[in-house]
Amino acid sequence: MKATFIYGAGDVRVETTADPVIQFPTDAIVRTVRSCICGSDLHHYHSAPASEEGRSIGHELIAVVEEVGADVRNVRKGDFVVVPFAFSDNTCVYCREGFQTSCVHGGWYGTPAAAGLQAELARIPQADGSLVVVPDIDPDAADEALLKSLLTLSDVYLTGYHAAYMADVKPGQNVAVVGDGAVGLSAVLAAKQMGAERIILMGRHADRTDLGIKFGATDVVAERGADGVAAVKELMNGEGVHVVLEAVGHMPAYEQAYGIVRVGGVISRVGVPQYEAAPIGAQSLFRKNARLAGGIAPVRAYLEPAIQQVLNGEIDPGKVFDRTVTLDEVPAGYAAMDAREALKVMVTV
Amino acid sequence: MKATFIYGAGDVRVETTADPVIQFPTDAIVRTVRSCICGSDLHHYHSAPASEEGRSIGHELIAVVEEVGADVRNVRKGDFVVVPFAFSDNTCVYCREGFQTSCVHGGWYGTPAAAGLQAELARIPQADGSLVVVPDIDPDAADEALLKSLLTLSDVYLTGYHAAYMADVKPGQNVAVVGDGAVGLSAVLAAKQMGAERIILMGRHADRTDLGIKFGATDVVAERGADGVAAVKELMNGEGVHVVLEAVGHMPAYEQAYGIVRVGGVISRVGVPQYEAAPIGAQSLFRKNARLAGGIAPVRAYLEPAIQQVLNGEIDPGKVFDRTVTLDEVPAGYAAMDAREALKVMVTV
Repeated sequence: MKATFIYGAGDVRVETTADPVIQFPTDAIVRTVRSCICGSDLHHYHSAPASEEGRSIGHELIAVVEEVGADVRNVRKGDFVVVPFAFSDNTCVYCREGFQTSCVHGGWYGTPAAAGLQAELARIPQADGSLVVVPDIDPDAADEALLKSLLTLSDVYLTGYHAAYMADVKPGQNVAVVGDGAVGLSAVLAAKQMGAERIILMGRHADRTDLGIKFGATDVVAERGADGVAAVKELMNGEGVHVVLEAVGHMPAYEQAYGIVRVGGVISRVGVPQYEAAPIGAQSLFRKNARLAGGIAPVRAYLEPAIQQVLNGEIDPGKVFDRTVTLDEVPAGYAAMDAREALKVMVTV
Repeated sequence: MKATFIYGAGDVRVETTADPVIQFPTDAIVRTVRSCICGSDLHHYHSAPASEEGRSIGHELIAVVEEVGADVRNVRKGDFVVVPFAFSDNTCVYCREGFQTSCVHGGWYGTPAAAGLQAELARIPQADGSLVVVPDIDPDAADEALLKSLLTLSDVYLTGYHAAYMADVKPGQNVAVVGDGAVGLSAVLAAKQMGAERIILMGRHADRTDLGIKFGATDVVAERGADGVAAVKELMNGEGVHVVLEAVGHMPAYEQAYGIVRVGGVISRVGVPQYEAAPIGAQSLFRKNARLAGGIAPVRAYLEPAIQQVLNGEIDPGKVFDRTVTLDEVPAGYAAMDAREALKVMVTV
């Protein structure tokens, strides 16, 4: 099969490699319908050390089950499935509490435990826990817009949703979203679903913030830093917002977040932090009783109802895809996202 | 009247000063029944810069109203009241949301806005919002144990309660309390009130942890650092605790907290952070979806039901007082708390 490997910063290649095979009785082999490129793949694209062997990459996928191991009960050959970006048994003590990204038998794609998913075929560990069937849809006959929206449930939309969920967004609340990337726009859509009244999108790319407005943003703030804080506070009667959804992961975005959060409000982060230490003392969080939430999104926890919302046409998160490439064109897809020529790139086989 | 002033590190003096007078029609003048010394007063005791004039100090008080300003409606001369450690109008947008320590007309004692409360008399700004009457109790005839418990509602018990409240402790949860000072012991009592199942008290002073056990701690862990993390995890089946109540404010206590918090759990801080930046990235909070809560306790928000709990004998937080001094002896009280000879010192007039 063909699969994607990263050999170092800026060096992504599509190569022929051996087809995956069942290694454990809990595995499944799936055939790609669509995969895509994630903002977090770009972190590797920027900083992966040079490597002789290359490392397989990709973690977002919708697919059809080709083969299942002897112990797999919940999916079977021919099922059309969404593949969450982390695998999990969905039965361990953490999975049962809704934190499948901390599954004691779980793990990540593009690691020794499981190859990356920007490929024609993939081995899915813990298939019973990881895969969720999309009922009554033939992917070969499905509308492209539907496939796009289902694909976002593998990571990007439900990562944005996780931010809103962990912030416990309530009807009538004021929400600010820091970041107009695909996760930030997904967080806008999720906050809208949860009944937020004002949704302030902080971003400066008009094509992206325009989509944010379609998803439910009521205000756009292009300013950053102290100007951005002042602009949000002015919109909020000087008080800041109840909820900040931080969808970037860099320190300036976090600084923006604690600048605009209201007394007693919450910052919920889903952008993977590119820092370890950050302000949380009297001047940032403590004095105003601001809280901090979020983390690596357990998208598996939210998948069944989200699939129904997509099938019912209640949400259309697939609009974040503004470019489609074939698997052979994946390196060009990385380059386009890196250059911000594309918001998010879908990959066909 | 006599009042307490701090002239520099280790230099606390009781001096005669002018009686306070009504300055604003929303003020009240109160006469001290009991005040006390706070762990946070010790921060000043350790680090106050030398001063020619001295600064008045103290912020915990139960008192009898002597006089009220023309606009005061909720209290009158002769009322026995609890004085929260911050004053607030209790009507502003933040007060109405339960964050009276962020009141737009609020402030702090021992500042230019209001003198300290380790004194015979005090001026209370925003008296209608700040003071809460203790019904049907004559302080001159009241039991000393009752006065002690009422006095803790000015700060220490309700600060510990705020930690548990912001963590949203639920029946059956496992809670760890970092710190065996008076706030930590109060947090144990609050967690017990909220139905915690296991309450692990982290502390190494047997006389203090013994009181923690009376308040509801089920386990005591004396180890610190990596040994402390290992000891708590061993008690918790390797998984950490749902809730960590951090009642110290120093970095090692925070590090302890993120080491023992469970996947998806919450750290709630009420010890005033002696740091601004601290770990919150992938290795500390993000990967395990741990949350951070807490802040400066709005004790005013919790005062009416807490007074009833004390009057009904449901809670006895006054046990944290293990020494009583007169106002003239306050400097010795500071020294005793600083030397850890006393857990918490009550002050009579």
